[in-house]
Amino acid sequence: MIETPYLLFLGDAPDMLAAKVAIGIRDWRPENALGQIRLPGCGADLGLTDMTLAEAKAAGCKTLVIGVANRGGMISQSWKEVLIKALEMGFDLASGLHNLLRDEGDLVAAAQMHGGTLHDVRVPTDGYPIANGENRTGKRCLAVGTDCSVGKMYTALAMDAVMQERGLKSTFRATGQTGILITGHGVPLDAVVADFMAGSVEYLTPNNDDDHWDMIEGQGSLFHVSYSGVTMALVHGGQPDALILCHEPTREHMRGLPGFSLPSLEELRDTALPLARKSNPACQVVGISVNTQHLSEEEAVKYLAEVEERMGLPTVDPYRHGAGRLVDALATV
Amino acid sequence: MIETPYLLFLGDAPDMLAAKVAIGIRDWRPENALGQIRLPGCGADLGLTDMTLAEAKAAGCKTLVIGVANRGGMISQSWKEVLIKALEMGFDLASGLHNLLRDEGDLVAAAQMHGGTLHDVRVPTDGYPIANGENRTGKRCLAVGTDCSVGKMYTALAMDAVMQERGLKSTFRATGQTGILITGHGVPLDAVVADFMAGSVEYLTPNNDDDHWDMIEGQGSLFHVSYSGVTMALVHGGQPDALILCHEPTREHMRGLPGFSLPSLEELRDTALPLARKSNPACQVVGISVNTQHLSEEEAVKYLAEVEERMGLPTVDPYRHGAGRLVDALATV
Repeated sequence: MIETPYLLFLGDAPDMLAAKVAIGIRDWRPENALGQIRLPGCGADLGLTDMTLAEAKAAGCKTLVIGVANRGGMISQSWKEVLIKALEMGFDLASGLHNLLRDEGDLVAAAQMHGGTLHDVRVPTDGYPIANGENRTGKRCLAVGTDCSVGKMYTALAMDAVMQERGLKSTFRATGQTGILITGHGVPLDAVVADFMAGSVEYLTPNNDDDHWDMIEGQGSLFHVSYSGVTMALVHGGQPDALILCHEPTREHMRGLPGFSLPSLEELRDTALPLARKSNPACQVVGISVNTQHLSEEEAVKYLAEVEERMGLPTVDPYRHGAGRLVDALATV
Repeated sequence: MIETPYLLFLGDAPDMLAAKVAIGIRDWRPENALGQIRLPGCGADLGLTDMTLAEAKAAGCKTLVIGVANRGGMISQSWKEVLIKALEMGFDLASGLHNLLRDEGDLVAAAQMHGGTLHDVRVPTDGYPIANGENRTGKRCLAVGTDCSVGKMYTALAMDAVMQERGLKSTFRATGQTGILITGHGVPLDAVVADFMAGSVEYLTPNNDDDHWDMIEGQGSLFHVSYSGVTMALVHGGQPDALILCHEPTREHMRGLPGFSLPSLEELRDTALPLARKSNPACQVVGISVNTQHLSEEEAVKYLAEVEERMGLPTVDPYRHGAGRLVDALATV
C-alpha cells in the first residue's frame, strides 16, 4: 500500500508520452495528484501546480511518485538529487521503473536513515497462496483482449469511475505497474512466480459484499503466445462473473509478433467464456470495448454499430463515448 | 547442467514412496544411477549397489543427488554430515527439495571451500527471454492432461525411450524438478516469473534437426484453475506439432480442488488443439495416454478400447502396454 496523496515527479521527460504514468494518476485519481515537480528541460506538463519538495510537504504529500520513463535504463544523477532530498524530507518513493530503487545504494541508505519506504511496484511484495478455486462472494468483471495493449486497463478504470459516479460499490483491481501506481496497491502479475499467479489474483479479489464489483485489470491476451499464461491465470483466478471483450480494429498483427494475426471477437468470446466458466459457471460476456483511436468519429460510430449488431452485445469506445453502457450491462449478471 | 553419473542419496527414507525421485532416475536413466547411499533406518532400497562416498568416487560418480523427500521440511543434521563429507570429497550436490541447499550456510561454506556446485533444481538458473513465437525447426510433442498428475511426465519419458530404442532422434525436455534431476537439465517452469514462462519453453526446445522430436514434459492442466497459466505457456511456448491427451479415469475431482469435475477427453481436445494451433497451425492430436493404475487389467483393456473407438485415436497405458503405438502415431505428423 503506497501512501497518498502524491507529488508527481516528471524529471526531464522529453514529452508527454514519457509521462504516461503520471497522466494516468492525474486522470484517474486526481485526488491523489496534488502537484508536479519538474527538472530543467522537462517537456511534459500535467497542468498541475508546480511544487518544490517543501511546498508539497506542506500540502500534505506523502509519496514522491516517479511518473516518467527514464532514458537509457538508468536513474540519472540529476534525478538522484531530488529523490534523496525527498527521502531526507520524509517522503516515501514509488516507482515502476525496470531499474529498481532498491538496487541504488544511495537511495537505500537515505531511506534507512530517514525512515522512508522505497516502493518498486514491479516487484511482488506479498507472499501469495496457490489458488484454491473456492467460490468467493461479491462480483467480478474482467476485461479480456484480442491482443495486448488494446485498452483493457482503460476499460476497467472507466467502468469503475462510472460505478463510483452512480454510487455503486466498485473497486478497480490493478494487476500492472501503472494501475498499481494509480491506485496505490495491486499485484504486479507479470512478475509473480508461475505457480502463484492464479493465487495472487484470488488474493487481490477477495470475498466482498454481494453487490460489490471488482473491476479487474486484464493483462496480455489468451491469443498472445508470449503472455497467454498470465491471461489464463486472470481468467481462472479472477473467477469473473462478467467478461468485457476488448479490441483495437486497425492492428495488423499481434503486438510484437509479426506474422500472428488477431483473432476475431467471436473467437475471443468462444475461447474465453468456456475457460472462465471453469472457475465461475455463471460467467457471461456482457459487452465489448473498442479502442477506436485510429478511426475518425464517423468511422468509429459505424464500426461500433456494426459490431454491436453482429455480436448482439453493447459495444462502445469508453474513451469517446463513456463506459455507461458497459456498466448498465453488468446489471444483467 | 548437472554432472553425471550420480550417487543416489536415500537418507532415512521411511519407505519407497519417499524415494520417488531416486526411483525415477534409476528407471529412466539407469546409466546415471551408479549406486545408492543410505542412512541407518532407511526403509527404501532401489536394488542398486550400496556405496560409501569413497567407493562412489572411485566408481566415477560426479554428483550426489538427494533422491528422497525430507521429513518436517528441514535438512537434518544426519543428512548434513553426509552432504558436507561429499562436498569435501569433490562431489557436487543436486536437490529438488523445497528447502534450498544454498540456504544452508554450512553447505555453502563447504561447497566454496572445495569447489563444488550446489544444484537446487527448483530455482531457475538461466535468464530466459520473452517468447517471440518464431517458427523453430524440428518437431515437438507435448502431453496435455485433463488434470494434474495424470502421467504426463511418464508418457513423455516412455515415448522418448521408445524413440531411442528405435534409433530415432528424440530428447526428453524436463519442465519439473523430478524430470530435471532425471536428465540433469531442464526448466523448473512453475518457478519461472510469469512474463518469461513461454520464453523459457522456447529456450528449452530450440531449433533442431527436421527429424528430431522434443518430448516436452507437460505441467498442470488447462482445466486446473490453480496452474492453468503454466500449462498455457507450454502450449504456446512449446509450439507443439503433436499433442498427447493424458487422463486418469477414476479420479472424482480435479486434484486438490473438491467440487471441480474433470473435463472429458473431447473437451480437452477441443480446448487444447485450437490454442496450440495459434503457435503451430499444423498441430494435431495424435494419441491418448491413460493412467489405468486403479483399474484391473481387464477393466483397463476394455476402457482403452472404448476410448480408442470413441475418439478415433490410438489409446494406450504406456506403463502397462508400452508407448510404441504413441510413437507410431508421430509418424503421421
